[in-house]
Amino acid sequence: MEDIVATGFRLKNGLVSVLDQQLIPREEVWVECPTLESMVHAIQSLKVRGAPAIGIAASLFVLGESMRGCDVASLLQTVKILRGSRPTAVNLMNYMDRLDRVIGESSAEWKDQLRLEVKAIVEEDFELCERIAEAGVSVVPENPRVLTHCNTGCIATAGRGTALGIVTKLHELGQNVHVYVDETRPLLQGGRLTAWELGKAGIAHTLICDNMAGMLMAHGKVDCVLVGADRIARNGDFANKIGTYSLAVLASYHNVPFYVAAPETTIDRHCPDGNSIPIEERKPEEVRGFSGALGELYWSPDNVATYNPAFDVTPAQLVSGWILDTGVKTRCDWDS
Amino acid sequence: MEDIVATGFRLKNGLVSVLDQQLIPREEVWVECPTLESMVHAIQSLKVRGAPAIGIAASLFVLGESMRGCDVASLLQTVKILRGSRPTAVNLMNYMDRLDRVIGESSAEWKDQLRLEVKAIVEEDFELCERIAEAGVSVVPENPRVLTHCNTGCIATAGRGTALGIVTKLHELGQNVHVYVDETRPLLQGGRLTAWELGKAGIAHTLICDNMAGMLMAHGKVDCVLVGADRIARNGDFANKIGTYSLAVLASYHNVPFYVAAPETTIDRHCPDGNSIPIEERKPEEVRGFSGALGELYWSPDNVATYNPAFDVTPAQLVSGWILDTGVKTRCDWDS
Repeated sequence: MEDIVATGFRLKNGLVSVLDQQLIPREEVWVECPTLESMVHAIQSLKVRGAPAIGIAASLFVLGESMRGCDVASLLQTVKILRGSRPTAVNLMNYMDRLDRVIGESSAEWKDQLRLEVKAIVEEDFELCERIAEAGVSVVPENPRVLTHCNTGCIATAGRGTALGIVTKLHELGQNVHVYVDETRPLLQGGRLTAWELGKAGIAHTLICDNMAGMLMAHGKVDCVLVGADRIARNGDFANKIGTYSLAVLASYHNVPFYVAAPETTIDRHCPDGNSIPIEERKPEEVRGFSGALGELYWSPDNVATYNPAFDVTPAQLVSGWILDTGVKTRCDWDS
Repeated sequence: MEDIVATGFRLKNGLVSVLDQQLIPREEVWVECPTLESMVHAIQSLKVRGAPAIGIAASLFVLGESMRGCDVASLLQTVKILRGSRPTAVNLMNYMDRLDRVIGESSAEWKDQLRLEVKAIVEEDFELCERIAEAGVSVVPENPRVLTHCNTGCIATAGRGTALGIVTKLHELGQNVHVYVDETRPLLQGGRLTAWELGKAGIAHTLICDNMAGMLMAHGKVDCVLVGADRIARNGDFANKIGTYSLAVLASYHNVPFYVAAPETTIDRHCPDGNSIPIEERKPEEVRGFSGALGELYWSPDNVATYNPAFDVTPAQLVSGWILDTGVKTRCDWDS
């Protein structure tokens, strides 16, 4: 079968490799995952991150195993282990459940069906990004100066990403787009990943510290804010990387349109509003300094108490539009 | 004469030492400045920082030189060199001008007069901090949970500091005060210095990344914001460390009182409003990572373009009160 190649992962001759996101932007190192142990390690050590990318890389690994002649019982066990390798990644669970069903049917053509299912997973994610980008182009201002937060680009999906995918689409369409990139403390996904992606794509961008966004808006330098979403409640409230809510308040104060871009599947119909979204609090070390494959530096007092919510919740009334693969929702489209 | 001792600098037996602020909070190292070269180096390498601290440390050095028998001509030359060692520090210029006048009078008692003048400079700064703290106590909520930005404490003055001085005063008065400390990217004065000062003072505090302030306010965890000021215009607009303006907008949105604390001398009567305050833009390396005596780590792409204003301007209409050593000003007290 043909190879499958995305920005952050690939399957070549049955072998999965992932681009080590921990080393970006300093080095671009592809890590091969020939064994289940190496695949699980790549997931757990965040070499591959981003909910779609994790799920797809794992799916490609399952396909590779089947190409190497792995039997049904072993493959089902592999699917089970991968499914549990990052408990909070919803895409990973969904994709593994799909593969489990196909393999478990044990029809004579299960290998062909598995190949088709994995291809479908990749293509669906790619198409999702395309449709979000098209919907985004229809609503954001022309030739915009965009402020974005965290990383929502091609490195985390099979396609062009969500919020950042709209930016690359505008660029492809010949629009003059400039991106202000929040560095996104504490894990610095903006400074590390988004700045790298935009540089690779040749899109004009300026890196800022998160606390500079207000001044940029006050000086009229931001035409719209584009962010992603980790979960959207039934009333349109949504959770996203910590710092998103502050941006929404600042955008509202300065009359700057504020858009959230995500697949329709991000909407959690069981969740009535933002208050019902649980917020993970992470370890103090992340706020006390920075530590990763790029190096380690702690600048604050040892053992200083911290507050480190991974996400915050932005209420629907601060959102100008929800850019989904199924189209753009406005405030009237939600349960109130 | 007796020794002069503050948190960040001291004169003992005619010898000036400064607490190396570049090594805080990792180490508390006192750097002796026995020569003019070593004093200038301590100022230029930011071992001593904070406008009052720079000016006072230089004044103490001049006093020490006179005690070691330095003649008038040499001492005037020393004053001139120190005056130019950091061109933007207004206190340094003012203090050196005062010493220049005393020494230049060449009266028989010039050494005694110099000693009195230097003592007066130290005591004035100390008293200024006390009066700001007392004024602050009269207006901030009781037992407050305070959000602060950058470093405005005792390490930068002869006394308890400005905004943070109000906090230590509340603590001394037995109030139950809790401080949320913005880490204050890019130079991390909050994470490095303010967290250290509060730890030394035994005051409860929590370190946060700058982008978490909005969520804290949304959850009702902040009773007031206290910040310092680098320059206040005639209409009450003021410049302060980058990120202050975003906090002011967030505080206004959440109906959290927002106070600025500074000496009356911070008001620039020649400056009609915030638009007239020039904003220094600093080098890109600061945003690309962090570098200092504590270590160096760059996490963003080499040569990525950055925006790095050192300060931003907060308009008077977002300020609940200006806490000065001369009392608390309200919005009606300014030229409009």
